Amino acid sequence: MASKKKDKKKDKINDDTETAAKKDKKKGWSLILSSIIAGLLGAFVYRLYVSYVVVPELPKFDLDVWWGSGPRSSQDISIRPYRILLLDSMQENIRRKFEAYRRATKIKSLNESSSYGLNSDNLGQIFAHWQFKYNYRERTRYFNKYDHFKTNIQGLDMHFVHVKPTTPGNVRVLPLLLLHGWPSSVKDFYEMIPLLTTPRTGYDFVFEIIAPSLPGFAHSQGAARPGLTTYEIAIIMRNLMKRIGFNQFYIHGGDIGHAIGSHMATIFPNQILGFHTTTPINYSYLASMGWFIGSICPKCLLDNYVRDKMYPLSDKLSFYLEESGYFHLQSTKPDTIGIALQDSPLGLAAYIIERYLLYTNPNSKFTPEEAFSGYNMTDLLDNVMLYWSTGSITTSLRLFKETVRNYEMEQVLARIPTSVPTWGLRTKNDLFHQNDNIIRWKYPNLRGLTNLEVGGHFPAFEIPSEVASDIFKSVKKFLLTKKV
Amino acid sequence: MASKKKDKKKDKINDDTETAAKKDKKKGWSLILSSIIAGLLGAFVYRLYVSYVVVPELPKFDLDVWWGSGPRSSQDISIRPYRILLLDSMQENIRRKFEAYRRATKIKSLNESSSYGLNSDNLGQIFAHWQFKYNYRERTRYFNKYDHFKTNIQGLDMHFVHVKPTTPGNVRVLPLLLLHGWPSSVKDFYEMIPLLTTPRTGYDFVFEIIAPSLPGFAHSQGAARPGLTTYEIAIIMRNLMKRIGFNQFYIHGGDIGHAIGSHMATIFPNQILGFHTTTPINYSYLASMGWFIGSICPKCLLDNYVRDKMYPLSDKLSFYLEESGYFHLQSTKPDTIGIALQDSPLGLAAYIIERYLLYTNPNSKFTPEEAFSGYNMTDLLDNVMLYWSTGSITTSLRLFKETVRNYEMEQVLARIPTSVPTWGLRTKNDLFHQNDNIIRWKYPNLRGLTNLEVGGHFPAFEIPSEVASDIFKSVKKFLLTKKV
Repeated sequence: MASKKKDKKKDKINDDTETAAKKDKKKGWSLILSSIIAGLLGAFVYRLYVSYVVVPELPKFDLDVWWGSGPRSSQDISIRPYRILLLDSMQENIRRKFEAYRRATKIKSLNESSSYGLNSDNLGQIFAHWQFKYNYRERTRYFNKYDHFKTNIQGLDMHFVHVKPTTPGNVRVLPLLLLHGWPSSVKDFYEMIPLLTTPRTGYDFVFEIIAPSLPGFAHSQGAARPGLTTYEIAIIMRNLMKRIGFNQFYIHGGDIGHAIGSHMATIFPNQILGFHTTTPINYSYLASMGWFIGSICPKCLLDNYVRDKMYPLSDKLSFYLEESGYFHLQSTKPDTIGIALQDSPLGLAAYIIERYLLYTNPNSKFTPEEAFSGYNMTDLLDNVMLYWSTGSITTSLRLFKETVRNYEMEQVLARIPTSVPTWGLRTKNDLFHQNDNIIRWKYPNLRGLTNLEVGGHFPAFEIPSEVASDIFKSVKKFLLTKKV
Repeated sequence: MASKKKDKKKDKINDDTETAAKKDKKKGWSLILSSIIAGLLGAFVYRLYVSYVVVPELPKFDLDVWWGSGPRSSQDISIRPYRILLLDSMQENIRRKFEAYRRATKIKSLNESSSYGLNSDNLGQIFAHWQFKYNYRERTRYFNKYDHFKTNIQGLDMHFVHVKPTTPGNVRVLPLLLLHGWPSSVKDFYEMIPLLTTPRTGYDFVFEIIAPSLPGFAHSQGAARPGLTTYEIAIIMRNLMKRIGFNQFYIHGGDIGHAIGSHMATIFPNQILGFHTTTPINYSYLASMGWFIGSICPKCLLDNYVRDKMYPLSDKLSFYLEESGYFHLQSTKPDTIGIALQDSPLGLAAYIIERYLLYTNPNSKFTPEEAFSGYNMTDLLDNVMLYWSTGSITTSLRLFKETVRNYEMEQVLARIPTSVPTWGLRTKNDLFHQNDNIIRWKYPNLRGLTNLEVGGHFPAFEIPSEVASDIFKSVKKFLLTKKV
């Protein structure tokens, strides 16, 4: 019995030893396995960190890329005066196109029809105004009330408005570059320019205005080869300002003009004295992630102004989905849709004006009878005419494709903070809003943000006096620390 | 000392009791917590199960919804002969529009330009053919080589082609409904119709053809109010066939025609004798999930034919992203884009023909010089003319919005299997491919699938004789078990 017991004990010891060995083996395996998992996880987190968090080095850009169709030797670098013309022959062409226009099937319910796209009654109003009230000769005079010029930059004939203020001797003149977006044009700035060039109480400076048409937009030539994305335009804009004679200057921009201005502040921080944006957005992936994460508890994270405009997330996402079809098409097949838009004046007007209506007042689609309230139809058609008269809608659409195709570089630039003093103007109905601290990742020298309870995505056009005042205010702040 | 020891022991016992109590409490909590988690998880899984797996009951549909603008009392239910006309005045209108057309900026590199959308050289070819080679009178004769009719269904004047075969006495005549998609029309079937109506060796039947224009497409009237989605069209189609005199019939369809045919087979299983589809797809969420899950190990799951066409997943997803801009725009703002497309003949042609080129040969965008190889330009323009001459592009685009808006019901119908005998024809370059067993979830009575190494998304138009043969083959199989 004793021996059996002993045996058992022995067995038990053996068992124990075996179990211990097994355990050790198991331990070894689980150690290896967890090391591998930890390693993989670490590598993954590190990859995320490097891709989205670490500030990359500023890439070297070729500052003299050639975008023209002609040879470099043919370049004329003079600055030539230019006039915007709406010719009688153009009016005749449009009249013929209007005659050949056929109305589409209406849907009975007005409200429903409006949610299908531009309401047919709204189209009728545009049509009537363009046919009977839009005066080509008078608008030609209006367009030319400022001085226009053209000069060739990197192979492209660039058009720009140049307005020099007349000032008393004690008022400084500061150069200001105005950058429009899509589907905007220099027209967006027409009412704001006199406000910026006129001295005002409390300020010892005014602005000298340079407002270019972006390459491929209206009177500026489109690229003859692919690749002209926002940061390449940033380089063209800096070269244009240099050509005109400004090595240092201020920038105001919104929409694509914001992206271009932001790239200029990033690539040429010493040349940009200050950046005023009406689209104060950090569009790095990390910033977008912040928006998603913020949805877990909007109350914890955000100031009131922004919170109500960014959340609930699902509402915003479904709004973007509903309203981004044009973006999707333009960033993939700009040429196809461009063929129809540059052949049909009413089609172009509908396509452009729908964005103006919706992006200034998202409820306009539910109240088509009020869609144009607060708008002067002539103003809206002026903008359409700049695209129409130059046949430039297709080249303007291509910018979406270029930007999406080069999104990696866009992201690199979005992650590099700029030292340029920056000021943001936020409007009630703008498309995107972002929390202050997230904007500061990209613009650590953010001097302030203005929150308005009016306006939408085209504030320079909608509320020019508010925007002009804000530009004055921001530049005064910029001047306190950085001297020209 | 001893008493102290005792105390310590006591303490230890007390401690143990306390720990045990704590442990019990912890156990209790963790039990509650894990029950809650398990409950939530269970509820979630159950919800997924109910939403995506459980077969819902067939909803009750109103089979007599009124879509017209006029009152119900005004309906004329006669079947009237109809002729398709391409009038001289229409040609004159197009000529004027052509005269007023301005060419857009070209991008230098042909290949790049083609990836921006329809290549400008390809547009030039379309333009030249339409201007100089497209013969309106000859095409009018061509369109009218079959008998056309109109009749009012649920308030809408529906157009259809009706071809009765002339047959020897021993050959049966089976009614076959042909359903086109977007941007197709009855033109897709023009070369296939004689093949279907002519007796062939080995078959004791031929087909009597009814090929309607979908409501809102070409010569069929669009709805006067919102909501006309694919399953509502399925009801209209069934009512149209009833009006013509067929209570039971076969269906052939592709693209949207597949969706409509599939809904008919689901809602009216006793009236559909067999369903032949060139888009054999189960588009329930669960089926799509199968595609994603399959990407873990494509080799394990799929037959060769389908596997190479569905994976790698990332390639397919980026293809869909690149090619679905039109879909995104149409399913959100059909009216806006429609204004330009119905005003510009070349814009419409570019928009439609681009889809034909790309969806039959996705490489055509990289080889624009070969884009039209295998196509007769007159055939492509015939299809465009059916949209153009009727000004129906906008109403055709609205179907995308309706279908996306009513996607929940689409999903319900996608999850209800149909008992109708079904046959699928798969082509090499079609947009979506799906594994056999996933198709069988929706079509348990799937009698077979044909795999072709030719053709794309519009097989009836591209390879009419292959499709006609396949229809004969499938109906022969259907007849083996189900008698007319």
